Amino acid sequence: MTELTLDTIDFAILADTFHAPTKGSFEFHSDWLILVDRNGDIAATVDKNQPHYGDWLAAIAAQNKLRTVEKGHYLLPGLVDLHCHAPQWPQAGKGLDLPLYEWLQNYTFPLENRYRDNAFADDIYADVVSTLLANGTTSAVYFASIHRESSELLAQHCLTQGQRGFVGKVNMDNAEQCPDFYRESSVAQALAETEQFVHNVFALPGNDIGLVSPVITPRFVPSCTPQMLRGLGDLVQKYDLHMQTHCSESDWARDYAQSQFGKTDIEIYAEHGLLNRKSVLAHSIFLTENDVAMIKDYQAGIGHCPLSNMYFANAAMQTRELLDAGVQIGLGSDIAGAPVPSIFRAAFDAVSHSRVREDGVNGRIDAALRGEANSRVSYVEAFWMATAGGGQVLDSKVGVFAPGYHFDALVIEPSRDFGNLRVYSDMDSPRDILEKVIALASRENIQRVWVQGRLVRG
Amino acid sequence: MTELTLDTIDFAILADTFHAPTKGSFEFHSDWLILVDRNGDIAATVDKNQPHYGDWLAAIAAQNKLRTVEKGHYLLPGLVDLHCHAPQWPQAGKGLDLPLYEWLQNYTFPLENRYRDNAFADDIYADVVSTLLANGTTSAVYFASIHRESSELLAQHCLTQGQRGFVGKVNMDNAEQCPDFYRESSVAQALAETEQFVHNVFALPGNDIGLVSPVITPRFVPSCTPQMLRGLGDLVQKYDLHMQTHCSESDWARDYAQSQFGKTDIEIYAEHGLLNRKSVLAHSIFLTENDVAMIKDYQAGIGHCPLSNMYFANAAMQTRELLDAGVQIGLGSDIAGAPVPSIFRAAFDAVSHSRVREDGVNGRIDAALRGEANSRVSYVEAFWMATAGGGQVLDSKVGVFAPGYHFDALVIEPSRDFGNLRVYSDMDSPRDILEKVIALASRENIQRVWVQGRLVRG
Ligand SMILES: [Zn+2]
Ligand SMILES: [Zn+2]
Repeated sequence: MTELTLDTIDFAILADTFHAPTKGSFEFHSDWLILVDRNGDIAATVDKNQPHYGDWLAAIAAQNKLRTVEKGHYLLPGLVDLHCHAPQWPQAGKGLDLPLYEWLQNYTFPLENRYRDNAFADDIYADVVSTLLANGTTSAVYFASIHRESSELLAQHCLTQGQRGFVGKVNMDNAEQCPDFYRESSVAQALAETEQFVHNVFALPGNDIGLVSPVITPRFVPSCTPQMLRGLGDLVQKYDLHMQTHCSESDWARDYAQSQFGKTDIEIYAEHGLLNRKSVLAHSIFLTENDVAMIKDYQAGIGHCPLSNMYFANAAMQTRELLDAGVQIGLGSDIAGAPVPSIFRAAFDAVSHSRVREDGVNGRIDAALRGEANSRVSYVEAFWMATAGGGQVLDSKVGVFAPGYHFDALVIEPSRDFGNLRVYSDMDSPRDILEKVIALASRENIQRVWVQGRLVRG
Repeated sequence: MTELTLDTIDFAILADTFHAPTKGSFEFHSDWLILVDRNGDIAATVDKNQPHYGDWLAAIAAQNKLRTVEKGHYLLPGLVDLHCHAPQWPQAGKGLDLPLYEWLQNYTFPLENRYRDNAFADDIYADVVSTLLANGTTSAVYFASIHRESSELLAQHCLTQGQRGFVGKVNMDNAEQCPDFYRESSVAQALAETEQFVHNVFALPGNDIGLVSPVITPRFVPSCTPQMLRGLGDLVQKYDLHMQTHCSESDWARDYAQSQFGKTDIEIYAEHGLLNRKSVLAHSIFLTENDVAMIKDYQAGIGHCPLSNMYFANAAMQTRELLDAGVQIGLGSDIAGAPVPSIFRAAFDAVSHSRVREDGVNGRIDAALRGEANSRVSYVEAFWMATAGGGQVLDSKVGVFAPGYHFDALVIEPSRDFGNLRVYSDMDSPRDILEKVIALASRENIQRVWVQGRLVRG
């Protein structure tokens, strides 16, 4: 410990801290010290059992750089939402009774098309970003709409409000699957707009540290022509960009790729150059063995959206097998295929849906044949997906408190005065507390949020 | 309209109002007028298209009795929670990874046994009642513990805080299934205590209008000897009491009754005199055709707890068929078999679980064989279960705004400043708004709550 080292420190947090650096387990450190440098990255973590802990504490306090989280409150990594359709936010919670096709054609596409109006977009996108931040989402991967300008407004809102944003202008051009009123006018025009979008997002004033990234975003196989997929793949390769799309979400989507191309979604994305270590594949319900091997080879990742799956996927994700296979997986809200803009809720639902999968649903079938044995996911695994797992999918240094990682974090405040989260110091172990947070923390309980060392809420 | 009539009116509410008097549909009345009499019951409702609406409005305002709910806020019936284990509240959200047997023996029974300590019970029960009220639950059906005195404290908290409470001292005496440290010392002692409990709850100071009712509560078939069930059935008949218990919740519970008695739970409850038109049967997953016929004959009702079912029931409830068969059904939180003390959440989960049931979970099975076609439940049906349906199960005049019903109600306030519920007046129909409330309203959005005409929150 030297003065020189401390001079590069902006502040340090002293807190009872949870995180899950390793899939399948979690760490709880009471009175953990996390040193954050002037770039907002973590310089060091110091456990109270380490030598010189007291010296560090004293030196930091002497420089007036110590921020102490109250006892009974808890520091956690910020949450990662890998799949959120920002323009669909006004639709969240309605129309879920509709079949997917009707939902898209009659609700979603007309709504998304309103984002040609920048004023409308500006108003809604401001609320989306602030709502996700308030729910603890420090990194968000957004589908915007096909409109370049308003998609850039979404990126601007991330930057202004301080959210780590991964923002995609949507591309969809297949006249057979996209409505006349809402599709690209031509492949050439769409690719030019998309390349412009990429440049403009990188160049946003204040984005020099890359808080906001452009994401290449083919909507999904049915809505894109092969020419479009090829052009977008070229952009991914040319600039080494993030890519997001939907993958094998439902029986219909799986069958569409097979009937049109005789291939799986993954095979199609791969052959058009769309897959890399920064690809986010939303859903990925109906994967073949070969698909799984390819996803691993590319080090691509899956955005698991359990609540949306309950409504639109026709089956449960094989989360257990994919976790065991070492595929990178994080969680998504899938606003507005599901209505709840919370990754704690996504984590809870990932466990719930896996339990339903394990036990099955049809009580008229013999119990031994009803479900799929040993397919449950634990809360600890769900917490990992919500944080470290999501960070891995993005190939981004978030979701874990360790040197070199960005300091993206939140503080949970349980209280009898608001919300439904209760912690009893004499009855609850750290594991109990973590499970309760996943099950019951609402935005009322999220007292403070930091992104890249900047306090953005609280 | 006469002065005489208005003199019996305590106040009137003017509000954009939702309710669901008929299963399968809902009503929305803008600027509805609900007249509440001095007993807290509804004297009349007046739609703005009815003759003399303006006269009523003017006359009520002239007497300074008009309470206007702001535009953009919505009045709904208070919610009915048919199944909540109040003493398990400290456990909500933890241990859900455990098998049911271990969960009960290692977590639940030791916790429930702490309610022999009245001070401990008093503290927790105060929070349970206020938490459920804050979440909009105006009628709550509680399992307490085996301890008479602290169970009476729970009833007292309902009365003090103004919640319509249906409170049961739990009975469990089967030495083979109950732990030594937590079971009745004898059948005679337990029945004497239970009868005393019934008298004491009816006689609570301030309970002259019967806001709080005692409920006969055999835990479930495995935990009770036939002598206990018989004695409790006699009490049900002697005083015409409410009864609550668990019914065919899991494979294990169903098999236990068959292997021990060669009968179903329903047959066992019926033959011991436990069923009547005020019985609440929690869960009821594995019912036979004969069970369903018997439930209808007794006009008993089911407390459907969908989130708990995802974890512990081994299958989805046959909600679709039971609704179609005209069985009385409402919803329960099943705190702490599920963690969330909200009946809006139970309504949402009832839809979600029914959708998972319809589509199935195992993606390796052909789509046509994976789920159970046409088994979905709609949000409108879920809203009916959360309100009117629950009221029917309790044989109580709640859940609907109609003359003769108790005025139990809540006001929903959507806002961008808190919570995740957003309503757009130019984009959302009344049906959309109702679905959004079910999907996204949290306790922050519940701005006011009345029970029996008394404003108990807000
Ligand atoms: Zn999506
Ligand atoms: Zn129960």
